[in-house]
Amino acid sequence: MTDFGTGDGDVGVMKGVIAGIAPEAHIIDITHDVAPQRVASGAWILDSAYRYFPARTVFVCVVDPGVGSARRAIALHAGEWYFVGPDNGLFSYVLAEQPVHQAVLLSNKAYHLQQVSSTFHGRDIFAPAGAHLARSMGTELPEMGAAIDPTTLLRLDIAPPVRKGAAIEAHILHVDRFGNLITNVPLALVPDLFDLPQVKALFPGTGRVVRQRRHFFAEGGNGGESAGGALPFIYGDSSGYVGIAVQNGSAAQVLGVGYGASITFVMYTR
Amino acid sequence: MTDFGTGDGDVGVMKGVIAGIAPEAHIIDITHDVAPQRVASGAWILDSAYRYFPARTVFVCVVDPGVGSARRAIALHAGEWYFVGPDNGLFSYVLAEQPVHQAVLLSNKAYHLQQVSSTFHGRDIFAPAGAHLARSMGTELPEMGAAIDPTTLLRLDIAPPVRKGAAIEAHILHVDRFGNLITNVPLALVPDLFDLPQVKALFPGTGRVVRQRRHFFAEGGNGGESAGGALPFIYGDSSGYVGIAVQNGSAAQVLGVGYGASITFVMYTR
Amino acid sequence: MTDFGTGDGDVGVMKGVIAGIAPEAHIIDITHDVAPQRVASGAWILDSAYRYFPARTVFVCVVDPGVGSARRAIALHAGEWYFVGPDNGLFSYVLAEQPVHQAVLLSNKAYHLQQVSSTFHGRDIFAPAGAHLARSMGTELPEMGAAIDPTTLLRLDIAPPVRKGAAIEAHILHVDRFGNLITNVPLALVPDLFDLPQVKALFPGTGRVVRQRRHFFAEGGNGGESAGGALPFIYGDSSGYVGIAVQNGSAAQVLGVGYGASITFVMYTR
Repeated sequence: MTDFGTGDGDVGVMKGVIAGIAPEAHIIDITHDVAPQRVASGAWILDSAYRYFPARTVFVCVVDPGVGSARRAIALHAGEWYFVGPDNGLFSYVLAEQPVHQAVLLSNKAYHLQQVSSTFHGRDIFAPAGAHLARSMGTELPEMGAAIDPTTLLRLDIAPPVRKGAAIEAHILHVDRFGNLITNVPLALVPDLFDLPQVKALFPGTGRVVRQRRHFFAEGGNGGESAGGALPFIYGDSSGYVGIAVQNGSAAQVLGVGYGASITFVMYTR
Repeated sequence: MTDFGTGDGDVGVMKGVIAGIAPEAHIIDITHDVAPQRVASGAWILDSAYRYFPARTVFVCVVDPGVGSARRAIALHAGEWYFVGPDNGLFSYVLAEQPVHQAVLLSNKAYHLQQVSSTFHGRDIFAPAGAHLARSMGTELPEMGAAIDPTTLLRLDIAPPVRKGAAIEAHILHVDRFGNLITNVPLALVPDLFDLPQVKALFPGTGRVVRQRRHFFAEGGNGGESAGGALPFIYGDSSGYVGIAVQNGSAAQVLGVGYGASITFVMYTR
Repeated sequence: MTDFGTGDGDVGVMKGVIAGIAPEAHIIDITHDVAPQRVASGAWILDSAYRYFPARTVFVCVVDPGVGSARRAIALHAGEWYFVGPDNGLFSYVLAEQPVHQAVLLSNKAYHLQQVSSTFHGRDIFAPAGAHLARSMGTELPEMGAAIDPTTLLRLDIAPPVRKGAAIEAHILHVDRFGNLITNVPLALVPDLFDLPQVKALFPGTGRVVRQRRHFFAEGGNGGESAGGALPFIYGDSSGYVGIAVQNGSAAQVLGVGYGASITFVMYTR
């Protein structure tokens, strides 16, 4: 996973480096279109993905605005997986959710390319490290560099939603390709969301309110079209969070809100 | 093949699921940029691609606006290949072109992920089913669920072109990345297209006429440029259909027509 | 590497063809988003990538505006690698940098698909040739067609930068996804670039001047922001060329220059 896009050869070069070190490795792209240098988006996308990969998968993750600076290059063994990338918060959800068995600084130059640039550590440090780990099933982790105290790893301030009486104050974590708005409210926090007599979602400062709920996109008719527009609805996103969508349309466009926007759910229990 | 795009982690997650079940499978992307929820486009792209893959390839195809509704999740053994996806017309061309040896409903939960969401069957049902088939070379198909009568499978109304005397009334099936317009006229229908003394293509209601024919893009000069613009021409697209292109340009832009537009070919035999 | 994009199934079809001939081959994408039909961009991206791939990698490269015309379809053994594609300049940098051990015309139809279209040689000629080479570790090269005298291979006129006293007259070879401007000045030509007391980069005819130099993107503060805008700087790009960038922004946008633009470096040694 990177923010390099696929318009240049950078991602291909990283895979070429991996193929040279670990020819048998199967390489899978999570995405290379993380919003450029937006570490929080990369962290969220990684969170929605990593659990679905087999044990001992090595995740090479590069969203790295600080490349070349003093930020640390690291490798982690957390849960059943390995993670390689910059220590800038990209692994915040993983660190919050999985036990960290080992963390090392990628300081041993024997596991880097011979020439290390100051602008492309994906190619020169992270891809080689990931490939060595994939080849060795992780046994090389301790040799790759000095151990790091996991408590010193940088973590983003992932503000959880705040309950205030009948309200949950939350925000938009991610806007997906269809324009669905994914909130930071875990479905586990509101298991009864679809059973409550009434729920509404407000976007503070915009006057926008969403009242409809749906279990899936194609459920029922699109009542809002008779009122001159697509009707947004609340749903349980497959990432495990509450989302806002519009059938066959973009909730982000219809509502005029995007990444980072505040959203408040008000739940009537009567 | 999906319409998920590659900007989120959804496609990567499906591959992670596949890698967990069938670690030796080679995964190839047809495309993940089918126009969102446009089943007809997905069906056409699959048609242009599947014959070029080796026998026993498993095609996992998800363009699925009805996910979570009553539409059926299916797997097919048709011709030399396997196909997994929603029963919504996505396999219309395959069904028209290949004998169906077996069709099953993906009803056996043993071949799903343990938790099935109502919005992401690509991850929870189709990827696992495809991976099981790839691993078993198809032997597991009968165990995946109840047999389906192939005649009940949903097929799009793929209107063939209509011959009216010297005219063929057709439409645009697909606009490719270069802006080439691909029609629904199979090259096999007009084997003599490039031998006839005269042919013209009309776009009804637009006044646009295309008279030039070319065997390949770089053939001859671009005569239209002297007249102040690029000159569109009729050609035989590599997909097996008649197309309209502009050298080094977009026929869709030059002609101002797109997906679904009507086009009439008039063939003069004298 | 192609300019086909990934919105259609064309790249997938090529991989399907490869999988049928060389089932064990690992397929890696460099990029499929070379600017359509811009051979010079494809040549540059290939140059930035090929050295990082293992020996005996087969590069199948298709940026081919002349497909179907008399331009030759070729395969090369150059340096430690194999290259397959059109003889239109796409391999100009490779030819300038590596010894050519063997070059052949892909004239033997036994290594093509049975039906060869006039518009999609990627599928019908180049993918099969590349797959046969990958499977045979290159031993089949002499059988694929008639030997070609390497001196007859088409080479782009890759204008090197011109030194005029304290000035280097150069141009922009590539604009990457972040909007970084990559020049045709090799870092090896100006090893002292970052040690000189003063350097400035001028964009002739625009009045734009860049004076700041940085070793990496996150170095120091963004001094320009206090002046109401992002401050562009000179840096050493990981491709091995001098570049111009803006921290967390697009140098191409900030400076209003793009592909092919002239740039002059003036180096003060006092």
